[in-house]
Amino acid sequence: MRIHVVNPNASAPMTEGIAAAALAAAAPGIEVTTTGAAGGPPSIEGPVDGAMAVPWMLQRIEEAERAGTEGHVIACFDDTGLDAARCIARAPVVGIGEAAYHCATLVADRFAVVTSVPEALPVLRGNLARYGLSARCAGLRAAGVPVLDIDRGTPEALAAIRRETCAALDTDGADAIVLGCAGMATLAATLSEEFGCPVVEGIAAGLSLVTALGAAGLRTSKRGGYATPRRKDEE
Amino acid sequence: MRIHVVNPNASAPMTEGIAAAALAAAAPGIEVTTTGAAGGPPSIEGPVDGAMAVPWMLQRIEEAERAGTEGHVIACFDDTGLDAARCIARAPVVGIGEAAYHCATLVADRFAVVTSVPEALPVLRGNLARYGLSARCAGLRAAGVPVLDIDRGTPEALAAIRRETCAALDTDGADAIVLGCAGMATLAATLSEEFGCPVVEGIAAGLSLVTALGAAGLRTSKRGGYATPRRKDEE
Amino acid sequence: MRIHVVNPNASAPMTEGIAAAALAAAAPGIEVTTTGAAGGPPSIEGPVDGAMAVPWMLQRIEEAERAGTEGHVIACFDDTGLDAARCIARAPVVGIGEAAYHCATLVADRFAVVTSVPEALPVLRGNLARYGLSARCAGLRAAGVPVLDIDRGTPEALAAIRRETCAALDTDGADAIVLGCAGMATLAATLSEEFGCPVVEGIAAGLSLVTALGAAGLRTSKRGGYATPRRKDEE
Amino acid sequence: MRIHVVNPNASAPMTEGIAAAALAAAAPGIEVTTTGAAGGPPSIEGPVDGAMAVPWMLQRIEEAERAGTEGHVIACFDDTGLDAARCIARAPVVGIGEAAYHCATLVADRFAVVTSVPEALPVLRGNLARYGLSARCAGLRAAGVPVLDIDRGTPEALAAIRRETCAALDTDGADAIVLGCAGMATLAATLSEEFGCPVVEGIAAGLSLVTALGAAGLRTSKRGGYATPRRKDEE
Amino acid sequence: MRIHVVNPNASAPMTEGIAAAALAAAAPGIEVTTTGAAGGPPSIEGPVDGAMAVPWMLQRIEEAERAGTEGHVIACFDDTGLDAARCIARAPVVGIGEAAYHCATLVADRFAVVTSVPEALPVLRGNLARYGLSARCAGLRAAGVPVLDIDRGTPEALAAIRRETCAALDTDGADAIVLGCAGMATLAATLSEEFGCPVVEGIAAGLSLVTALGAAGLRTSKRGGYATPRRKDEE
Amino acid sequence: MRIHVVNPNASAPMTEGIAAAALAAAAPGIEVTTTGAAGGPPSIEGPVDGAMAVPWMLQRIEEAERAGTEGHVIACFDDTGLDAARCIARAPVVGIGEAAYHCATLVADRFAVVTSVPEALPVLRGNLARYGLSARCAGLRAAGVPVLDIDRGTPEALAAIRRETCAALDTDGADAIVLGCAGMATLAATLSEEFGCPVVEGIAAGLSLVTALGAAGLRTSKRGGYATPRRKDEE
Repeated sequence: MRIHVVNPNASAPMTEGIAAAALAAAAPGIEVTTTGAAGGPPSIEGPVDGAMAVPWMLQRIEEAERAGTEGHVIACFDDTGLDAARCIARAPVVGIGEAAYHCATLVADRFAVVTSVPEALPVLRGNLARYGLSARCAGLRAAGVPVLDIDRGTPEALAAIRRETCAALDTDGADAIVLGCAGMATLAATLSEEFGCPVVEGIAAGLSLVTALGAAGLRTSKRGGYATPRRKDEE
Repeated sequence: MRIHVVNPNASAPMTEGIAAAALAAAAPGIEVTTTGAAGGPPSIEGPVDGAMAVPWMLQRIEEAERAGTEGHVIACFDDTGLDAARCIARAPVVGIGEAAYHCATLVADRFAVVTSVPEALPVLRGNLARYGLSARCAGLRAAGVPVLDIDRGTPEALAAIRRETCAALDTDGADAIVLGCAGMATLAATLSEEFGCPVVEGIAAGLSLVTALGAAGLRTSKRGGYATPRRKDEE
Repeated sequence: MRIHVVNPNASAPMTEGIAAAALAAAAPGIEVTTTGAAGGPPSIEGPVDGAMAVPWMLQRIEEAERAGTEGHVIACFDDTGLDAARCIARAPVVGIGEAAYHCATLVADRFAVVTSVPEALPVLRGNLARYGLSARCAGLRAAGVPVLDIDRGTPEALAAIRRETCAALDTDGADAIVLGCAGMATLAATLSEEFGCPVVEGIAAGLSLVTALGAAGLRTSKRGGYATPRRKDEE
Repeated sequence: MRIHVVNPNASAPMTEGIAAAALAAAAPGIEVTTTGAAGGPPSIEGPVDGAMAVPWMLQRIEEAERAGTEGHVIACFDDTGLDAARCIARAPVVGIGEAAYHCATLVADRFAVVTSVPEALPVLRGNLARYGLSARCAGLRAAGVPVLDIDRGTPEALAAIRRETCAALDTDGADAIVLGCAGMATLAATLSEEFGCPVVEGIAAGLSLVTALGAAGLRTSKRGGYATPRRKDEE
Repeated sequence: MRIHVVNPNASAPMTEGIAAAALAAAAPGIEVTTTGAAGGPPSIEGPVDGAMAVPWMLQRIEEAERAGTEGHVIACFDDTGLDAARCIARAPVVGIGEAAYHCATLVADRFAVVTSVPEALPVLRGNLARYGLSARCAGLRAAGVPVLDIDRGTPEALAAIRRETCAALDTDGADAIVLGCAGMATLAATLSEEFGCPVVEGIAAGLSLVTALGAAGLRTSKRGGYATPRRKDEE
Repeated sequence: MRIHVVNPNASAPMTEGIAAAALAAAAPGIEVTTTGAAGGPPSIEGPVDGAMAVPWMLQRIEEAERAGTEGHVIACFDDTGLDAARCIARAPVVGIGEAAYHCATLVADRFAVVTSVPEALPVLRGNLARYGLSARCAGLRAAGVPVLDIDRGTPEALAAIRRETCAALDTDGADAIVLGCAGMATLAATLSEEFGCPVVEGIAAGLSLVTALGAAGLRTSKRGGYATPRRKDEE
């Protein structure tokens, strides 16, 4: 099975990191191709970056469809452009945010999200409501650390993430943690062992879920909300 | 990866049918063991059957845990005893109802459920609310056909299922169909082709999802809602 | 009018305590019979205990029905097996948790629940959502005291319950308190006087409500969700 | 125990009918006094009638409080002035609409309301949402018959009520019926027998519930939402 | 365009203050008439005051309708009697509470309400739920300052309002503030500048919104929930 | 006051139609500039068109901001790119869909939406949920008529719109109609007179609302969800 992972921003190092995480998470027999949205913004922080990234990301989705991919993963925790991607694709499409939330509800009664910066929270809050999972989320917390510092693994960044994880478990009463930032992917195993609870990371969750959809023979519906856009020849 | 599928009722033919469907749906490298809840009721129709089945089913879960299973699937569309099973298991546990709903929301904007008899609807309606997915469900429909007739594949049963599928798509405005009865598993591919939309069947969905959780390294949280029950020695 | 109160666990002392509380709460002319679920677990702490208790409790419900009872009270704050009990009974059935919540909404704008241990919270939270009363609940608090210490009335237990009651009123902004544990029944009057607000205790609430249903001539519906299970003779 | 039933409109015949229904529903030992809101509108049909009735009704509540009543029932299905009445009263206060809904959820999974005229529906819909019970209501139906014709028991009125009751059970999938009009009180027993399901009538439900609150020792909270209004001496 | 602003209480100084604020907020060409509910209570604090005020307020609405007003503003943050006023009016009617909430959602993701006394909170919480805007409200805070002290602009009152505004922004995470008390109208501009975020004041919001409805040619629907009450001639 | 109306698609005739409707709706003293998203798709039908339009629309928003506009209206009923636009703008921004819904709730208890084609419904349904107004929407109906036929005013298009308006009022029980397509703007007055109820048209509603926000001195919050994007210089 061939899976296409798309990084909706234009940062080549991030695309490489995502590719590495995706390869590490791929089941045997899964062939992963990772692309980046060259032309899009260098990172996705809020609705404007999201809006500027989507047209470029949709090109990657379209190319991968033509190349016969059997599943797409949108590797941005905001699930940027998810509905539009589903309209274009026949293969199943999963965002890493939604994948992480759905997985968390299958292994814990209530989860909390620990993300990078507070600016990220409103989009995540809106997504949780749309997916119907707000009541399962015990808390949304920002470590107050820029994505780049997380990527570099500075001690301050790690300390902040640990502090918010603690607070999510003890104060908010969460039973599992969702890491709300692609750059935190490599921390999941360590934090899970340290805190003794599931720590869900989106890239592994997304890759696993889209593989599951493919395994169950499911493709994106072309009726209703995700119908293929009509061609407009001089409408 | 070793997966345990448990049929919470005592019907040996149903257990065999479920085992066959599970084997058909298992990815390469997945070793599936299917058990039945001998001692439980011959079928699960409503809350009383569910209540009588759970103690026996939990024994199967416990035995499979001791045998080192890496995931459990509860093969009843009511997701009978799901919370209790998660308290006992360290491996991830997925019900086929919840699996089908989650998968449906990943490939369609709104889905409808087509099940066997109207008595089944209240439990399903309650589950959808608990999972937060009521707003994604365009309709809950019963074909008015007993499970046994569905198993036998009588022409009347098939006609009724087709009729409700049509109504779910055209009247309710669903974009995908969830088959709300384990006995309908073999119809999914045919109906999907005939109606040109995703038709989600719970056994394949459940097996795929629990495999996905395992692939993503996730196990049931032992904090909060799914904590291991305390031993009661002369409390 | 004859009312059956069932303690779904196997602890004889608890059954006696419940019987005493029920007798104290019964209106004149109400004849109360209290039974215990011998065979079930010694206490109900979480979904597994609940699941193991229900088959035994349903036997008590069935026997009481045959003996002509006119109402049932499930004396566990988790409302264990409520739906299944309603399927079996023609007389009305009320759980002490749901009874306490409904009564609280009739005398206060918002209530808080003070219960024994934090493990109890997830089941209560789920029940409140099912009953539609989440928005009326200002807070769910655990005193962190095992049920046995509450039963024994240790000073530490009482101090902890007072502390959480204070916090529920002052921090959460509740206008009334629901005592979320059958063992707290004897504290209701004292706390109500001390804190100057309604303190709702489930056994009295449950007994009063089921008497009210009987007085209003209401019996459990045998249509839809609470229909009598079909007999399965060699299905 | 002394209960005060207040008819918030000025119609003497309606007050008499309500008094008769209340007496019929009162448990032994309950002393019922029924008053009417002389000065108020002749009937309550919509928000304006409700607004004009409440000041007069609050006088009745205040007088009954001073006379030492131990519970109040507001005998209008709109639950007119319920919050204001609770602010004035120390005894518990129950509206017949809310009483009927709460009782219905204790004996049925889903209920439907059958009322007199379509103009009544918006207020009832709003109340159900406030009480958190919208999801338990399978349908709101108006028989299209003026209250007076219901009171007179004309054959057309009875036929229309039967027709909507049928539709509520068969089309909406309700398991119980709530009669949404005080004038229908005398029909409850007949309809319940005829349709084989609970038919909840508000006056009996309200009287029984307020008796239950009294029996459980509960009085209206004087904290928060139902606090006694402050005196305004030359503020 | 002629707009009628009604103060539902009987306090002449408050009516004058509201009139001044309304004149200041009126667009050029808008002719504002402000009336007070002589006969009503001196202020509206809770449901009883509200109930006593509405009949007098409805008289003002009716008189203004007959005088040909083209819009009504109810100048009480509780939106007292809003539904009844809409039943009487053909011109559009807006409450200053609802106006402030709707405006806040158009300029901020989440807002918080800062009001005078804690007794005011339950009514506001109920209104937010009715309007569907609870999820957009990050917090409801009372400064603990009586309305009169706010009117007099005492340093203590201002300090308390500033303190709660700070907490709403920093602790609750609000992006905008709604001032939940007509007496705070004059503070909006200062606070907005000081805290660098939108501070919504109801009188300006209400006057602007009702002008907007008039400009868009919209009048209150006379179907369904806001239908004109039927005349009752010896019904 | 200067208002910027942006048509997010590239169709010059549509931009002209919108400009005409906006001019007709503008209050005296309001200076309206209408722009189109040259470079975007010829029309917005579903999420892909929306995604391709937003980057171009944001340029128009940015230019208008620099030119000192005091308010923006997004003239697409899908409210395409609303959050991103608010991040860029300091002036208030209103979408014509959200404007129409908010206005409808101020003049009617429940409204229904009548739009062009069924493909439009999922986006509108999602928006209503986000705005918290789903419960106020009695129905979402598509006339099954392409936008161009509506623009041309063919008799078939008008007949279909009338038919769905009738059904919305009589079957769904709506009290007001929202016209869910910019091309229907010219029909509002006629339909309102014909059906005797408010018919809300988005361009007038949007222009009036954004004027109201300006009149109330409100600008888009730059905290939280709508914060100005950070510059990314060599991040």
